[in-house]
Amino acid sequence: MSMNSFGHLFRVTTWGESHGPALGATVDGCPPGVTVDEAMLQHWLDRRKPGQNKYTTQRREPDAVRILSGVFEGQTTGTPVQLMIENTDQRSKDYSEIMEKFRPGHADITYWQKYGIRDYRGGGRSSARETAARVAAGGLARAALAALAPDLRITGYMVQMGPHGVDRSRFDMDEIERNPFWTPDAQAADSWAGYLDELRKSGNSVGAVIELVARGVPAGLGAPIYGKLDTDLAAAMMSINAVKGVEIGEGMASAALTGDANADEIHMGPDGPVYSSNHAGGVLGGISTGQDVVVRFAVKPTSSILTPRATITKSGAPAEIVTKGRHDPCVGIRAVPVGEAMMACVLLDHLLLHRGQIGANRGTIG
Amino acid sequence: MSMNSFGHLFRVTTWGESHGPALGATVDGCPPGVTVDEAMLQHWLDRRKPGQNKYTTQRREPDAVRILSGVFEGQTTGTPVQLMIENTDQRSKDYSEIMEKFRPGHADITYWQKYGIRDYRGGGRSSARETAARVAAGGLARAALAALAPDLRITGYMVQMGPHGVDRSRFDMDEIERNPFWTPDAQAADSWAGYLDELRKSGNSVGAVIELVARGVPAGLGAPIYGKLDTDLAAAMMSINAVKGVEIGEGMASAALTGDANADEIHMGPDGPVYSSNHAGGVLGGISTGQDVVVRFAVKPTSSILTPRATITKSGAPAEIVTKGRHDPCVGIRAVPVGEAMMACVLLDHLLLHRGQIGANRGTIG
Amino acid sequence: MSMNSFGHLFRVTTWGESHGPALGATVDGCPPGVTVDEAMLQHWLDRRKPGQNKYTTQRREPDAVRILSGVFEGQTTGTPVQLMIENTDQRSKDYSEIMEKFRPGHADITYWQKYGIRDYRGGGRSSARETAARVAAGGLARAALAALAPDLRITGYMVQMGPHGVDRSRFDMDEIERNPFWTPDAQAADSWAGYLDELRKSGNSVGAVIELVARGVPAGLGAPIYGKLDTDLAAAMMSINAVKGVEIGEGMASAALTGDANADEIHMGPDGPVYSSNHAGGVLGGISTGQDVVVRFAVKPTSSILTPRATITKSGAPAEIVTKGRHDPCVGIRAVPVGEAMMACVLLDHLLLHRGQIGANRGTIG
Amino acid sequence: MSMNSFGHLFRVTTWGESHGPALGATVDGCPPGVTVDEAMLQHWLDRRKPGQNKYTTQRREPDAVRILSGVFEGQTTGTPVQLMIENTDQRSKDYSEIMEKFRPGHADITYWQKYGIRDYRGGGRSSARETAARVAAGGLARAALAALAPDLRITGYMVQMGPHGVDRSRFDMDEIERNPFWTPDAQAADSWAGYLDELRKSGNSVGAVIELVARGVPAGLGAPIYGKLDTDLAAAMMSINAVKGVEIGEGMASAALTGDANADEIHMGPDGPVYSSNHAGGVLGGISTGQDVVVRFAVKPTSSILTPRATITKSGAPAEIVTKGRHDPCVGIRAVPVGEAMMACVLLDHLLLHRGQIGANRGTIG
Repeated sequence: MSMNSFGHLFRVTTWGESHGPALGATVDGCPPGVTVDEAMLQHWLDRRKPGQNKYTTQRREPDAVRILSGVFEGQTTGTPVQLMIENTDQRSKDYSEIMEKFRPGHADITYWQKYGIRDYRGGGRSSARETAARVAAGGLARAALAALAPDLRITGYMVQMGPHGVDRSRFDMDEIERNPFWTPDAQAADSWAGYLDELRKSGNSVGAVIELVARGVPAGLGAPIYGKLDTDLAAAMMSINAVKGVEIGEGMASAALTGDANADEIHMGPDGPVYSSNHAGGVLGGISTGQDVVVRFAVKPTSSILTPRATITKSGAPAEIVTKGRHDPCVGIRAVPVGEAMMACVLLDHLLLHRGQIGANRGTIG
Repeated sequence: MSMNSFGHLFRVTTWGESHGPALGATVDGCPPGVTVDEAMLQHWLDRRKPGQNKYTTQRREPDAVRILSGVFEGQTTGTPVQLMIENTDQRSKDYSEIMEKFRPGHADITYWQKYGIRDYRGGGRSSARETAARVAAGGLARAALAALAPDLRITGYMVQMGPHGVDRSRFDMDEIERNPFWTPDAQAADSWAGYLDELRKSGNSVGAVIELVARGVPAGLGAPIYGKLDTDLAAAMMSINAVKGVEIGEGMASAALTGDANADEIHMGPDGPVYSSNHAGGVLGGISTGQDVVVRFAVKPTSSILTPRATITKSGAPAEIVTKGRHDPCVGIRAVPVGEAMMACVLLDHLLLHRGQIGANRGTIG
Repeated sequence: MSMNSFGHLFRVTTWGESHGPALGATVDGCPPGVTVDEAMLQHWLDRRKPGQNKYTTQRREPDAVRILSGVFEGQTTGTPVQLMIENTDQRSKDYSEIMEKFRPGHADITYWQKYGIRDYRGGGRSSARETAARVAAGGLARAALAALAPDLRITGYMVQMGPHGVDRSRFDMDEIERNPFWTPDAQAADSWAGYLDELRKSGNSVGAVIELVARGVPAGLGAPIYGKLDTDLAAAMMSINAVKGVEIGEGMASAALTGDANADEIHMGPDGPVYSSNHAGGVLGGISTGQDVVVRFAVKPTSSILTPRATITKSGAPAEIVTKGRHDPCVGIRAVPVGEAMMACVLLDHLLLHRGQIGANRGTIG
Repeated sequence: MSMNSFGHLFRVTTWGESHGPALGATVDGCPPGVTVDEAMLQHWLDRRKPGQNKYTTQRREPDAVRILSGVFEGQTTGTPVQLMIENTDQRSKDYSEIMEKFRPGHADITYWQKYGIRDYRGGGRSSARETAARVAAGGLARAALAALAPDLRITGYMVQMGPHGVDRSRFDMDEIERNPFWTPDAQAADSWAGYLDELRKSGNSVGAVIELVARGVPAGLGAPIYGKLDTDLAAAMMSINAVKGVEIGEGMASAALTGDANADEIHMGPDGPVYSSNHAGGVLGGISTGQDVVVRFAVKPTSSILTPRATITKSGAPAEIVTKGRHDPCVGIRAVPVGEAMMACVLLDHLLLHRGQIGANRGTIG
């Protein structure tokens, strides 16, 4: 019942603080025989790595991942895989201010109230650096999925920055890799660039909405009632730093629909059922339909800003705080690869769970 | 790793189908010495009970709960509490249509694809009747909370029906118990009544948004990184039938905010920290701040409607289906007590977890 | 993390007290499509049922099991199976003595010290009646094993009563069903009958050793390091009331062996590896070898005896106690079907776990 | 549901192989504010370290432990503690023989059959080197116990080597630290020395029995029915490499006792109940009585011996194997600190579980 673990059969436990010697993920339950090496994992870590462009923190971390166990001669052995990332850019710095004052919007005050002790250097365990371990584990999950469900594809992208959304009619998935915001709407990327530049220069920040789509998910994944596929996806996303909302399919907008508008009508296609729409986001009763699984999550604006904010000290005295340092003006950008990684872990986990309880056979249609 | 269980220390496993002999909840880990009896639980079940007004299904179920174990001489013993609700209103009915055809928006097709067998009578395990077991377990959680955190209050209410929201300036919490929609906006309740009546008569349905507020939650509850308080709340709500989105505090709207607008500034109050706002929804870094914990979730429109919808049969043949029977035009109404119950379970669980790892002492301020 | 649950994927939660209205098992994770009905489960319960002969308690309980959920038209649906056994022979009785005094060897004093409240009627939750729920769950596990591993056979029998062991050269497995002690040594059964009769008449009791053998267990089951097959078997047996020791293969006697004597040499047989001996008890490194899996456990003498024993009351006053009532002079007899049931649950669980992580393929030899 | 994890609230996940770059333990759920540093953990690791005397393997591993996370300024923070031990003495060696042949008594064949891939260098994951990670985690558990239960003392010692037992009348606990076998019977240590020397020189090995005693365990720890204190202790010990049997209190010998002989009579002492004997081994109904908790386990002889044994190759061909290398003639010696470590983890875990469910209050006597 580790509180720093997620997943049922493919179980990931992350560990480590922002300014300690290292952080990582202990991954248990990976199927044996999966081809993987450090370079394959590094590919995903590099997407999340800070300092890639002016819109992400200028902290210079190579985020080089090492595989310490569970892989032998290029293949997983079925035993725990230890993925370690050493922290290298821990600038010596004066922490006296954040040691005594609580930064609004950060976990400083709640960690203190809960534990009575906190590693105040860069947020310690609550730092977004922890998500590097998730991305490493997600890379391993993708390698396993490549063997088990070769048609499965996970794609994440930004659909909103601050108040500015996208125009889905302009979507071109090839654009995702061409702009710093991982958005398929090139025109939105252009306008966001200017908007975020202004915020960055003024030391302010802004929130974002990320959408994740998994194509090629076989029908039948998920395990009602409390291990639903959408339940686990919601938990996985909500556990990411700064996330305040999660949606499946229509999400919050489904409240405004009537039943006849919301019904995803079913037809028979050449390879099984097809649907006239996907309001459900690929999940019915907690189990995948075979349609695209669609998840969205909202990330709040980075709490570290240059505008002075009122706060208190550990002794309860009033104070003002300005959070200097190297921060992302929109943490939503780097949340894209993190969300993808979490989705990969959840889908692999449910593939294994399904195989465990059901095996290969299940209900056929037609 | 039961997929039909939730909670860590206060662990609830629900069981049973809509049209089987009974359903219920096996609750393990309840503290001993909690005063509880069937009448106390029945109070909460009666709020969720069908047939209370014309806006909920006319199925006549007394939903009488029996305590079969774990309570002795009016107090919990610390051993598993079995809460059983017998199904009584299982009208003999011709199931031949839904036995062969999959109802769009329902779990019929995915249960079939996953398991290769399904109890087609009224949805079986995927029926919203399962939520009665949650409400019973939530009643037990409330009884335990009354002893452990007597100032804690959980209140749920509807804030949107279809496209129609509420006006928060009109909120009067005493109104919640006075209208069939459990909304604190009496004027909204009036207009919703007419709106829903039309939908009901036309055999249509609509979605809703429910808000839950927990007051008096002590600071320090929650367990990063994957056992965050908000993570567990999100999972708990997303596991409820028909829920498609979950928000904490600002929720999806936090994406549109800038960092300076989103900062909940901290001041020192007579009893500890107070905040100038609550964009965070009472949770920072996955741990409660002591402010109100605020959760919202969206419920999709009931999938059982009278409008004919295209579907297929088990053999893959095209078909049309109309879901007759006794259905809620807006399942969001009865989702209010269900959401409250889930929140009670999550909060109690985290109280126990906190006590287990930390004990009574923690960081003080001032 | 329910403390009243065991198993990973095939997860059994038992509930209920000796003198409450009912007890049972909530079983989650059973594969769908398993053929099962109440009569099949009753077969196993009848073997454990009290009052079968003069060597077991004369309490008259039919131990009739009802399936309340998870089975539809004679097959499991993959959703939780609720197995309920109503308590019928709760004689009205004067409990004033055991309400105030703690019976030595019983859990009376520890339940009181832990919980501060206890159901003193017949031991409440700590009563051996709880094992009826295990046997019901084990019956379901056997039904699932019959489909998944049709060659697998589990046989339990007694190999020691008090100081009196068996002679393995006399073993005839057909004898097991012909004597009240479930022992394959008919001559031992004869001599035990007289021995136990004397003890019973004098109100005394005695311990026993039970051996369990599973034949036809496929190689490869088990999940190191802490989910080892032998670890889970040891936990399963030690959780049974009155068990004080568990052995795999040579067990405690392996301490006296030298390495060359203990080596189970390996040869190639027509269907895979065969071994020249089975000191290992069918498990190497926590994983099954394909040989017979052999487990033994010791049951202490029934603590309820007629000889007066010194004790104290709740207020700490010295007292004497004699435990009258209907008790087994050797609880080891009825522990045989309980041990078999636990072994069935553990083996099924590991079959599902193996299938989940590994699937059908694994290392071949030859 | 990690198979490489144990514990409920204090949860230890070990990782790493014998000849990989490192191995370690990821420990979650440790209470915050526990004073600990690497030297404190090293103290326990040094007791298990190989090459200490001629009776243990001559592999030269410093087994230096590093704390990579979860400790800040000398105290635990309540977040995961990563304990890493680098492997340094991985002699380049010709593994061609054990790569192709399965060593009898080792997990070579079962790992291959299960996973279809195995790290054959020194046993990989199944190597007894894994227990170093347990000892490190146990050191952390001891540090936490020192704060939470300062009177609690855990002592392990050997009570049997091969066929040679101890004489309890000669027990002097101060002797434990004075002989290489950690036995309180100095005379036995003398005679074992000669016996083991002979075995060692002939390349043979022998088994052993280790006894663990925990003094000062408060009454009330343990959580029936499947999270019993003795159940968890049995699982913890059985999970140790080469263990084939586990006993609580009288253990297997309890089978030979009669009820009147086995009854631990209860009297009132100055600080609560006292018992006239401790056949129960400090546990009744799965819950601690306040007496010494007594556990024994048997370790089989080291499987690596110089006597040639028959085996087969991966292709099924008959072969002979001699296991050269640096091995312990009696792995039971180094199992003493491992058993102590496991006991420390289990007791801390149950202290936290008890505090979580029950809090400080419970039933008083007198």
